[in-house]
Amino acid sequence: MKVAVVGATGYTGAELIRLLSMHPEVTGLFLFSRGEEVEVEKHFLGLGFAGKVKPLEELSGFNPDFAFLALPHGESGRYAQELIRRGVRVIDLSADFRLPLEVYDKWYGPHPAPELLEIAVYGLSEYFCEKIKTARLIANPGCYPTAFLLAVLPLAEKDLLQGVIISDMKSGVTGAGRSAKREMLFGEVAENFRPYGVGGKHRHLPEMENFLNMFARGLRVIFTPHLVPMKRGILGTIYLNLTTDFSLEELRKIYLAKYQDKPFIKILPDGQLPETRAVYGTNNALIAVNKEPGGMVIVTVAIDNLGKGAAGQAVQNMNLMAGLDETCGLKNTGIYF
Amino acid sequence: MKVAVVGATGYTGAELIRLLSMHPEVTGLFLFSRGEEVEVEKHFLGLGFAGKVKPLEELSGFNPDFAFLALPHGESGRYAQELIRRGVRVIDLSADFRLPLEVYDKWYGPHPAPELLEIAVYGLSEYFCEKIKTARLIANPGCYPTAFLLAVLPLAEKDLLQGVIISDMKSGVTGAGRSAKREMLFGEVAENFRPYGVGGKHRHLPEMENFLNMFARGLRVIFTPHLVPMKRGILGTIYLNLTTDFSLEELRKIYLAKYQDKPFIKILPDGQLPETRAVYGTNNALIAVNKEPGGMVIVTVAIDNLGKGAAGQAVQNMNLMAGLDETCGLKNTGIYF
Amino acid sequence: MKVAVVGATGYTGAELIRLLSMHPEVTGLFLFSRGEEVEVEKHFLGLGFAGKVKPLEELSGFNPDFAFLALPHGESGRYAQELIRRGVRVIDLSADFRLPLEVYDKWYGPHPAPELLEIAVYGLSEYFCEKIKTARLIANPGCYPTAFLLAVLPLAEKDLLQGVIISDMKSGVTGAGRSAKREMLFGEVAENFRPYGVGGKHRHLPEMENFLNMFARGLRVIFTPHLVPMKRGILGTIYLNLTTDFSLEELRKIYLAKYQDKPFIKILPDGQLPETRAVYGTNNALIAVNKEPGGMVIVTVAIDNLGKGAAGQAVQNMNLMAGLDETCGLKNTGIYF
Amino acid sequence: MKVAVVGATGYTGAELIRLLSMHPEVTGLFLFSRGEEVEVEKHFLGLGFAGKVKPLEELSGFNPDFAFLALPHGESGRYAQELIRRGVRVIDLSADFRLPLEVYDKWYGPHPAPELLEIAVYGLSEYFCEKIKTARLIANPGCYPTAFLLAVLPLAEKDLLQGVIISDMKSGVTGAGRSAKREMLFGEVAENFRPYGVGGKHRHLPEMENFLNMFARGLRVIFTPHLVPMKRGILGTIYLNLTTDFSLEELRKIYLAKYQDKPFIKILPDGQLPETRAVYGTNNALIAVNKEPGGMVIVTVAIDNLGKGAAGQAVQNMNLMAGLDETCGLKNTGIYF
Repeated sequence: MKVAVVGATGYTGAELIRLLSMHPEVTGLFLFSRGEEVEVEKHFLGLGFAGKVKPLEELSGFNPDFAFLALPHGESGRYAQELIRRGVRVIDLSADFRLPLEVYDKWYGPHPAPELLEIAVYGLSEYFCEKIKTARLIANPGCYPTAFLLAVLPLAEKDLLQGVIISDMKSGVTGAGRSAKREMLFGEVAENFRPYGVGGKHRHLPEMENFLNMFARGLRVIFTPHLVPMKRGILGTIYLNLTTDFSLEELRKIYLAKYQDKPFIKILPDGQLPETRAVYGTNNALIAVNKEPGGMVIVTVAIDNLGKGAAGQAVQNMNLMAGLDETCGLKNTGIYF
Repeated sequence: MKVAVVGATGYTGAELIRLLSMHPEVTGLFLFSRGEEVEVEKHFLGLGFAGKVKPLEELSGFNPDFAFLALPHGESGRYAQELIRRGVRVIDLSADFRLPLEVYDKWYGPHPAPELLEIAVYGLSEYFCEKIKTARLIANPGCYPTAFLLAVLPLAEKDLLQGVIISDMKSGVTGAGRSAKREMLFGEVAENFRPYGVGGKHRHLPEMENFLNMFARGLRVIFTPHLVPMKRGILGTIYLNLTTDFSLEELRKIYLAKYQDKPFIKILPDGQLPETRAVYGTNNALIAVNKEPGGMVIVTVAIDNLGKGAAGQAVQNMNLMAGLDETCGLKNTGIYF
Repeated sequence: MKVAVVGATGYTGAELIRLLSMHPEVTGLFLFSRGEEVEVEKHFLGLGFAGKVKPLEELSGFNPDFAFLALPHGESGRYAQELIRRGVRVIDLSADFRLPLEVYDKWYGPHPAPELLEIAVYGLSEYFCEKIKTARLIANPGCYPTAFLLAVLPLAEKDLLQGVIISDMKSGVTGAGRSAKREMLFGEVAENFRPYGVGGKHRHLPEMENFLNMFARGLRVIFTPHLVPMKRGILGTIYLNLTTDFSLEELRKIYLAKYQDKPFIKILPDGQLPETRAVYGTNNALIAVNKEPGGMVIVTVAIDNLGKGAAGQAVQNMNLMAGLDETCGLKNTGIYF
Repeated sequence: MKVAVVGATGYTGAELIRLLSMHPEVTGLFLFSRGEEVEVEKHFLGLGFAGKVKPLEELSGFNPDFAFLALPHGESGRYAQELIRRGVRVIDLSADFRLPLEVYDKWYGPHPAPELLEIAVYGLSEYFCEKIKTARLIANPGCYPTAFLLAVLPLAEKDLLQGVIISDMKSGVTGAGRSAKREMLFGEVAENFRPYGVGGKHRHLPEMENFLNMFARGLRVIFTPHLVPMKRGILGTIYLNLTTDFSLEELRKIYLAKYQDKPFIKILPDGQLPETRAVYGTNNALIAVNKEPGGMVIVTVAIDNLGKGAAGQAVQNMNLMAGLDETCGLKNTGIYF
């Protein structure tokens, strides 16, 4: 298969390159970026792609089997239009096709390609697998919503949840992208921990609520993101109210049953908790279910924001679209120490 | 004043030394430790205390005005007994005198000095100021409970809270002490974020609940601690349900009124959020009050776990006990970059 | 091929597991460790090897094609004896077989298996390739010596060097192993940079000098290691005096020629310098050659201490011993961001 | 004394504010910056200076006793001109007045105020103390040259050195300033170690050579800077050739004698080595002298790049200029854990 990575020099782009380079079915890997060549060469010192990244303009003459768009929202939608028109199957990692039009407009502004929304399939692989297989356009989920939905949907879809769900999430810095901002300098981030977007201000909140409410009604989400002084990883601590009292053992069984044939989702046994290094560089999600004495359920979940939260899930979706095993090229990609 | 630091070579001990070295009213600073001298010399390369730390046994012949105990729980209580008997005023930074006897026994085991519990004053300076002034024995609060109580009590004491309080807290590693454990190695902690004690297992939970319920009834706390790959700092994200709907502005006014004459507590204006570096090395607590669209209140709070969460508050308490201004020696002790 | 990793729960062991899990020719991977099972399960949360690590005692009944020994020096030699006796080909990652007997005795103490020294082959893959292919016992090089020798031998073997070579090297913490030592706690290492073993005290110095002097005479090495607050990576800055003046271009040509058919060694073009993240998780070495205005040559080199500096090179050596392409299973193993 | 910090929102500016806020003789502290107010408020969340930073234009109507210039080179010189004209004593932390005109022009470009060069005094406090006392304009030394000169001059000024001095130095990121550059993002710096400016390209090299050669003739410096993933601290490893053989003990005596009445310079005893955390936040320099078996001397030195390497030394110089004890306000400013 020939695949293109469009937006190759950001963190998500680089992770796509890493994973696609190891992928046994990818025979041609083509890279495009807005960045200048010289700059790019330096980025790819390690990756061995010096000089191989082409300017975005050259994309127009090129027809891969799959194109991954790792561009800013708004811009991504425009490239998707052109590629879809040419019959290229597109996996878009921006927010452009994740939300209903009116929600998108409210949170992101005017939509760049509203006519594509109806063909876009939300790429949460474990939940929309069948639709993904035949999709022409994948809206690859955001990193926070991926962690959130994987942790919450097993109970939500059985109508076991009620009221307010508190989603307290913590992320490494690569989730914020690679553009030069003072607040993301090493001197500002190291030895510091901080919340942001407190009070319902983060743009991943409508994505969480939108897909949660496809599976259950009447649930509300409170989402607080935090910045951790590390490069990769999301850890979510999610507080849930049950409609009926279930024992911890019963709850774990629901998760185990739900994900029993999902190779990337691991439900931890009693006494173990997820940690971000355990998913570093992988497409895995680790989930632990706990109950506190008063009956509230606490689900903790760890993913790699660049893995299952972005590039990993995108490759998993490509596998599904191509009729491959969904784990193809995605096993053994992690580093733990 | 002559002061002793007992347990001088741990992180809390070292922070006590740092603060007491700068304190204008401390004329004699005496250090005791279980550690061997050679080891100690290396620890104090920077502090200039090489060779000045004496073995714990020499404490018995020494009568300072104040003794700070930075020892493990259980051990601390025994030294407190002896010192109190000799008329030394004691500020104990262990858990030994923070809890009612039956709660202590349940969470920590047999109490080393139960007869002292009735004279011990809980050293949350902003709330027990008057009792602290005349106390012979201070139970200096735990780091997590300090952050929690400062953030929650202004609303709790006015009976504005109901139901379950979720306290999702994140701490740097010095909170875990300085003994050699594999799980605290740099190679295990760096590039990692993890929860621990999920489901009501952390020993600071009964301390939070005990003192919260002195100010309000019927509240329950869910407390999830997390380990952040940084040295210092606690950031708490606390989710609260109001009994009556108050506007955000009214809520902030309650906090501002409560802490208006408390020099170390800063209520942030709209749009600003606490971050741990902003309290690095200080005795300050930064608190922001926010409301999410559905009405839940989210209070975020930052303290330095070694500062207001341990040594800083201990020195503040010494100031109160000695009749000094409570800020004496505690201004301008932070480093932000 | 069936392979065993003996000493599976340290950092080097875990990296061996990671690489061998991805290796296409490894059909059976067997793990042994001194650690207790429970402990091990936690270590392998991410690796998926919970419960699969067997106690060292069970090694005696097991005959793999290759055994990797990732044990402390002294202990490693004893296991090598037994395995060699049973016909297992051994790749020893300890220091036990790297040095002549009298040098070993001086720096490490009595040798555990001196009779094996004559069959041991030094596993610096790029220089002892032919001997490695048929070896029964590989002495896998130390991390610092690997970086040093790769950087220096191209000039040394042509007798272009004279006098003193200054090797100023900096390493991440995993080089110090995974046992619990206070000085390696996150709280001691983060936000700190320090030299150690200054003045010829590090045990990798005799290894550097021993192999350097196989290729050139009369050279002396000054080696200063430093600890960097990061997990992986070695960066060496090496200062060399030439016997004859060569232009920078001529010097680069010597390196390029020497390593032209060595897939893991990359000589950087003018204007680029190695950095450790560019080799993170890989078996690569990046080398840059520079000259300062006065004529001294400065070679900078980066490797991953767990990769080319330990487990990566060990797998490369296994490939050579097994008649495989030396890159088998070692391409695309890195993470750069 | 009234003092102004011009360029208050960079790392050096913030450290000046921290130190001057604690200084007992500073009665008025006035801050000026090119940054916008809003931005500034956020920077000073911790420092308590929100809203107090004025635009640079307002500097013209203001006559403090001392002005610290923490501005980029070129710009700094222009402000110095105006302030000196108005009788303000200036401590310039840029490179503008450190070098002879022709050297400056070569390395930095056209000089902004060449007529001031003759009145500028190089502010290496321990070596130019008498001149500093009466100076109207101080050229505060660069961070790397400060560490280098303190480590080397005791032997250089006694003509004990010959040939080439190798200065291999490592710095935390705040030395690179606070402007937003991609290469200084947390995602690029963390878990990475890299050299830069290899081969005599760093602008601190001429500063090192210029002042070294005031004390000794015929010495050449090779200087390689490296970037460490930490916020503060410089560690220098310096390799020296002696003209005569001295014992290690004799060498240490020379250092001890030289710095015996210099309160900020500490010569470490045998067996101890400097580390950057031991000078974190202080104006101290730690120096260890070692000899390797072949006779070469290795001096290791640690300073805080923002302390003795910038703001700390600047305040020390102000103390000297004001006739105060040079330690005034500079004791006990460090944090070690």
